[in-house]
Amino acid sequence: MLYLIGLGLGDAEDITVKGLEAVRRCRRVYLEAYTSVLPAGREALEKFYGKELILADREMVEQEADSILKDADVCDVAFLVVGDPFGATTHSDLVLRAVNLGIPYRVIHNASIMNAVGCCGLQLYNFGETVSIVFWTDTWKPESFFDKIKKNRQNGMHTLCLLDIKVKEQSVENLMKIQTICQLEALQFHRGRKIYEPPRYMSVNQAAEQLLAIIQNRRLQGEEPEITENTICVGLARVGAQDQKIASGTLYQMSTVELGGPLHSMIVTGTMHPLELEMLNLFSVDSSKFENNAFQRNT
Amino acid sequence: MLYLIGLGLGDAEDITVKGLEAVRRCRRVYLEAYTSVLPAGREALEKFYGKELILADREMVEQEADSILKDADVCDVAFLVVGDPFGATTHSDLVLRAVNLGIPYRVIHNASIMNAVGCCGLQLYNFGETVSIVFWTDTWKPESFFDKIKKNRQNGMHTLCLLDIKVKEQSVENLMKIQTICQLEALQFHRGRKIYEPPRYMSVNQAAEQLLAIIQNRRLQGEEPEITENTICVGLARVGAQDQKIASGTLYQMSTVELGGPLHSMIVTGTMHPLELEMLNLFSVDSSKFENNAFQRNT
Repeated sequence: MLYLIGLGLGDAEDITVKGLEAVRRCRRVYLEAYTSVLPAGREALEKFYGKELILADREMVEQEADSILKDADVCDVAFLVVGDPFGATTHSDLVLRAVNLGIPYRVIHNASIMNAVGCCGLQLYNFGETVSIVFWTDTWKPESFFDKIKKNRQNGMHTLCLLDIKVKEQSVENLMKIQTICQLEALQFHRGRKIYEPPRYMSVNQAAEQLLAIIQNRRLQGEEPEITENTICVGLARVGAQDQKIASGTLYQMSTVELGGPLHSMIVTGTMHPLELEMLNLFSVDSSKFENNAFQRNT
Repeated sequence: MLYLIGLGLGDAEDITVKGLEAVRRCRRVYLEAYTSVLPAGREALEKFYGKELILADREMVEQEADSILKDADVCDVAFLVVGDPFGATTHSDLVLRAVNLGIPYRVIHNASIMNAVGCCGLQLYNFGETVSIVFWTDTWKPESFFDKIKKNRQNGMHTLCLLDIKVKEQSVENLMKIQTICQLEALQFHRGRKIYEPPRYMSVNQAAEQLLAIIQNRRLQGEEPEITENTICVGLARVGAQDQKIASGTLYQMSTVELGGPLHSMIVTGTMHPLELEMLNLFSVDSSKFENNAFQRNT
């Protein structure tokens, strides 16, 4: 049996009792380590589960899936995913491969950022399409997520913005460095060895700055955007962990709010119900400003 | 401390390890029993937790919230919710009341139907606004959910339809019966005693029938609806439980598909990615028909 097990969002104890029993029963346990990250870290998980974890990066899952599934028809194998196995990223590929090999699979669900954001008080059924905000580079500054947020807001809906994660990234500079080295003398040593950048996690500040830049662009193009510096947003950090932080305020305030370490997410609000407003006010950066701006939108 | 603890979707073992520890530590443990239902049932939970559960129906939560929060500033009280505490239904009222009384609160998240539906292979970020399909009565047949589904589909998005639950419902007939009895002789015995209907849970069949009826209405009004008998839908029953069932097929097929006991949910698909199609095909009622209809939409 292949078990796809969600770990939830906070620490080792956020696994379900059913999930923990399955992990302890499995012969091999993989930890998906490229679409999210648990604040607890791998060692804490290994200690709590009493099991050694095999880190599964994108390369392994995409190129060596058969090694993950090896013998799963005769023994139990677990594939652990931060959040839910079918949350922000799905692992359909692995499931389809298992089914094609005749290996039965079972999903053990858990909280993911897709439902846990409800903790800020905005109601999940008032959310439109979820968007991903990607890190801009000098030469690549996509704005498509802005138009989706705009559309949601025009429909009165909130938008959950998932913020970019870069793990085991091979930068252009690094790829060139490897190439140069290979062409010179250290060929034998470096062949097949990849150099990776340190992981990067987009903060709410960075996401807000990119959105503010888009608003400026749009104004230069003569558009008065649906979303402005004063649109009420929510910044969330480490949702589900002991030290989670939630801050509500204007988009401009989000560009400077201090939320600490990763992972961050952001919500751009649509039209708010009075109960949603009251909940968000619990987390406001500046209560008087919050009420002013929120009131403007909702009347 | 007030703990709001998600129980997940299947059985007693779907609580997280952290949630279980909190439950065992609490002086009083309430089980929210009106917006959802755990297949496992109350006794199984009590046995597994080693704790007596106090059933909290809508009346208690809305009218006697202070009794739930009593002494929560000096002892630990747990409020258990099937799924996630901020999933399909939020408990913001209880949180705000606690905050106003100076009682600290903590949320322990879990899977909810809002994220666990991902198990059918449709990707959560391709979902638009979630809708609720309510039981029609002879005199009340709202169609507003249909227009939301239509809008999502026009935008290429899938729609999760949450299906109606009626628990501890006082029917018009029952209310009249009580009144009559009271006016006659049994006044003393029946005073203050309410008679409730047995709980009702909408099935995928019923939801599909209501949608098909709306499509007929719209055609009579000269509209050729965006959603037809042949639109690909997904019926889900008891998601997360050992005996969960998923069936994909046309809306018409959903009106007769056999999914067993509650709780049911339904998805009306939008535009599908090839990987989504391949996953849905695993659950198709009739594979050849599925491919025909799905292909029509996606080209």
